Amino acid sequence: MKRTERVGAMIKILMDSPSRLFPLQYFCDTFDVAKSSISEDINLAASSVAATGSGYIETVSGAKGGVRFIPDISEEKLTALQEEFCSRIKDSSRLLGGGFLYTSDIMFDMDLVRRLATVFTKKFKDRGADYVATVETKGIPLASMVAHQMDLPLVIIRREAKVSEGSTVSINYFSGSYDRVQKMSISKRAVKPGSKAIIIDDFMRGGGSTKGIAEILSEFDVTVVGAGIAIASLLPEKKRITDYTPIIYLGDVDEETRTIEALPNFQIF
Amino acid sequence: MKRTERVGAMIKILMDSPSRLFPLQYFCDTFDVAKSSISEDINLAASSVAATGSGYIETVSGAKGGVRFIPDISEEKLTALQEEFCSRIKDSSRLLGGGFLYTSDIMFDMDLVRRLATVFTKKFKDRGADYVATVETKGIPLASMVAHQMDLPLVIIRREAKVSEGSTVSINYFSGSYDRVQKMSISKRAVKPGSKAIIIDDFMRGGGSTKGIAEILSEFDVTVVGAGIAIASLLPEKKRITDYTPIIYLGDVDEETRTIEALPNFQIF
Repeated sequence: MKRTERVGAMIKILMDSPSRLFPLQYFCDTFDVAKSSISEDINLAASSVAATGSGYIETVSGAKGGVRFIPDISEEKLTALQEEFCSRIKDSSRLLGGGFLYTSDIMFDMDLVRRLATVFTKKFKDRGADYVATVETKGIPLASMVAHQMDLPLVIIRREAKVSEGSTVSINYFSGSYDRVQKMSISKRAVKPGSKAIIIDDFMRGGGSTKGIAEILSEFDVTVVGAGIAIASLLPEKKRITDYTPIIYLGDVDEETRTIEALPNFQIF
Repeated sequence: MKRTERVGAMIKILMDSPSRLFPLQYFCDTFDVAKSSISEDINLAASSVAATGSGYIETVSGAKGGVRFIPDISEEKLTALQEEFCSRIKDSSRLLGGGFLYTSDIMFDMDLVRRLATVFTKKFKDRGADYVATVETKGIPLASMVAHQMDLPLVIIRREAKVSEGSTVSINYFSGSYDRVQKMSISKRAVKPGSKAIIIDDFMRGGGSTKGIAEILSEFDVTVVGAGIAIASLLPEKKRITDYTPIIYLGDVDEETRTIEALPNFQIF
């Protein structure tokens, strides 16, 4: 195998499993070459990937060290992503009445979702999280992509206890969006006590659902070390949680003039 | 930029958006080089990726042509994946009683899910599908990954009509797993009439749920062109649908001896 091919194959392997550390020996064995050659290959792979502005290759030294691919987003690409996201949200055909917007086409567009996930990966990668947690349903594709990019297990909190979840713990919480008490349920097998989690969700109005996730996790002594929300409503200003990171804000939704306000969060990083 | 770096960057860009066709001109503009150089780069990129046994780069000629990355899995890697999947399923600590198994840790392990998704991408890539459809909840991470790998929109069918889905169409169907009538609901905005869909789900016992998805899609004149199921139970032998592709089969679940049988589907391709 030529160097160019080896470098390409290395990028392929690292990108398949983002955030996962591969010992240098793995590549020595795979390509049957010496460590010195692999080190040069890694340098070439790193500069190729860095040039795309959407990730980098990191070398961790020491006995337990190795090399890994970390998804990333440049400032320029983040701005473009937020503009695209806002402009899609502003489309007046999303209006459903009662202040609700149809957003499933956006939250289930995996190319957009992948880039949104990278924003959260960049934001939360150094928080030492053990899990990515979400509550069903609309945030699951986004949370799945974050889990994939951060190489963490996904935890899906259910609305109702299911027999296929085994013993569960449930809580009730107040949902401002639906103006009523809702339920959440989590399998006792889903998380290890004393661990850390990042919460990912598609939308936040009053923060009740995010606070609910934090509360049900705290039943297992799981600490929330970050909350990433694709769209946060500007109103109500006072949310039930204070520490959360939206990618864009939803402003006024005026059904008479059929206008929807959306603006980027300029303070993600 | 040196050739080696350009080839690496090209692999990075193609892998970020699997199955998406990039015109050659895109790379000429990005790297500011002539088409002849890009063509040579593509050949090098293609042989690098092919060497990993988990995907290939395809060139489509003609005015609307270009180059794309298609996820793939070698026979050897498929066998290893099925063995890993079966061995994890056979773990007796999964037994929940009533024949139910706890599988969320597996279905929410994104590294496994990514590889399972590639099996379905390989199987269904030439069926001309417009959507990847699933019903909430446990199959959503898998369906999300298939949608990502095939560059198709995801459609999530809900158990209950939600106000944020706008007008919906609902059906009732019989679920053998739960031994009762269940409901499914889909937003009228989710699919275009006359289109084609692939169904993805985590588990099938009698096939009621998969048949339900096909039925609700047929309300919109959407044709099912493939059904990929991570785990299909061997019993009942007679399912409500005939054309489906499991990755592994679940055999006898014996709660007395605490044994779970699982075996690979040797006829996926």
